[in-house]
Amino acid sequence: MNWKARLLALDALMPSLDDYGRLAWGSLADAAEDAELVFLGLDRSDGGERACFAAVPPRGDASPRMANPQLWALMASLEPGDLALYGGARSLVDWHARHRFCAQCGAPTKPAKAGWQRNCGACHAQHFPRTDPVTIMLAEHDGRLMLGRGKGWPEGRFSALAGFVEPGETIEEAVAREVFEEAGIRVRDVTYVASQPWPFPSQLMIGCHCHALSDELEIDTTEMAEVRFFTREEVAASMAGDGPFATPPRHAIAHTLIEWWLKT
Amino acid sequence: MNWKARLLALDALMPSLDDYGRLAWGSLADAAEDAELVFLGLDRSDGGERACFAAVPPRGDASPRMANPQLWALMASLEPGDLALYGGARSLVDWHARHRFCAQCGAPTKPAKAGWQRNCGACHAQHFPRTDPVTIMLAEHDGRLMLGRGKGWPEGRFSALAGFVEPGETIEEAVAREVFEEAGIRVRDVTYVASQPWPFPSQLMIGCHCHALSDELEIDTTEMAEVRFFTREEVAASMAGDGPFATPPRHAIAHTLIEWWLKT
Repeated sequence: MNWKARLLALDALMPSLDDYGRLAWGSLADAAEDAELVFLGLDRSDGGERACFAAVPPRGDASPRMANPQLWALMASLEPGDLALYGGARSLVDWHARHRFCAQCGAPTKPAKAGWQRNCGACHAQHFPRTDPVTIMLAEHDGRLMLGRGKGWPEGRFSALAGFVEPGETIEEAVAREVFEEAGIRVRDVTYVASQPWPFPSQLMIGCHCHALSDELEIDTTEMAEVRFFTREEVAASMAGDGPFATPPRHAIAHTLIEWWLKT
Repeated sequence: MNWKARLLALDALMPSLDDYGRLAWGSLADAAEDAELVFLGLDRSDGGERACFAAVPPRGDASPRMANPQLWALMASLEPGDLALYGGARSLVDWHARHRFCAQCGAPTKPAKAGWQRNCGACHAQHFPRTDPVTIMLAEHDGRLMLGRGKGWPEGRFSALAGFVEPGETIEEAVAREVFEEAGIRVRDVTYVASQPWPFPSQLMIGCHCHALSDELEIDTTEMAEVRFFTREEVAASMAGDGPFATPPRHAIAHTLIEWWLKT
């Protein structure tokens, strides 16, 4: 059997790249002696079979979401397979780093099931990695697309509105509540378009489309700096790099949703 | 201002019903003196405005998922609005009861934001109620529908296969992995159908449809007792109460999905 193991090279939560711009890998011996290892899966890409692991860093990510421009540039350069692998691994090891104690009783927890679970030795609660569903939506009115600029975003950058699904909501209800909270507008005919895992720290982005019942905005200024409606021509020009706003990056689902909308 | 507050009557996590079969409510004074209160929202149904709360019970739900037949019968009797309200409230107070300590450092946490957050006084981590996305899917092959009976389910009861979305997956990838893991079958053309919050303890059920590439089952016997393909006639007869299997209860999304499929 051609069995080998390898360790994803991570500096805290940053990936390292090899000379070809691919994710760099090391051997299990590279991990700190007391590091917790998480099994990522088997790689059969080169004929053999390699078990892939990542090590849990001493500390999780405490930075505000999406605050690291170096990481963003790096992610934009990764090929899709590497990006997906890095994203999944990052979510998982970051969850471990932020869940070393039992939320039920406060005692220390230990990894189980090759790193896809943590168990409490005191009260025996089992804990699983979390994945938070988030709706992200394109609302249109009279052929114009509603996009927003979040507080703290650079001037001129617009994207789809988004928000966490709350306990007790359907996807469709979450979309309607979010648009009403952030833009003051009621919507109809919410439809699902596409989804994407997003590892900051561990979201499942659920991309939807809906129709706004009006274009009379009442913006929640605690969350949004601006919300505006753009014509199809303005959106197309911006996506081509020559329009009134800066678009979301190519690896974000908002980009995919806007591309999809331009084809509808 | 006609401002009143009321408290959802819960015995541990069981709802109480009034003489009309509606959810029973009490006053805030009914809560234990040291109980944590969670704000559920404003009820404007009778012209006035009533703030609705629920109290966090001393203990969360440690029972196996869906193990309480009394609760199930009771839920089946609730009208949709009450069922949704109970479900959301139950998820939220159960989350509080199982998250009294900080997963990052082990110190006690305190509720914040009217019960929609918990904060750690020691390391200042913020914790939010979790909602776990779960895919639940109808796979069909040659016009026949694949349904399964989980381990420990009563003889003759069949429903849609289901499983948690894992970190790093899209909804579509989760559906394909789940069907392959539980039934050994590859699928194509995954589409989204409908979603439902499910409070045991706090799932977002994401209902999908897909086409199975074959009907050669390889069943994961650690999870499933049986997986079978049923003809359209068999499924229709079972939904009418006179077929080869017992269907999922009316308030479960699997029921809605099967009804939807029979109309396609």
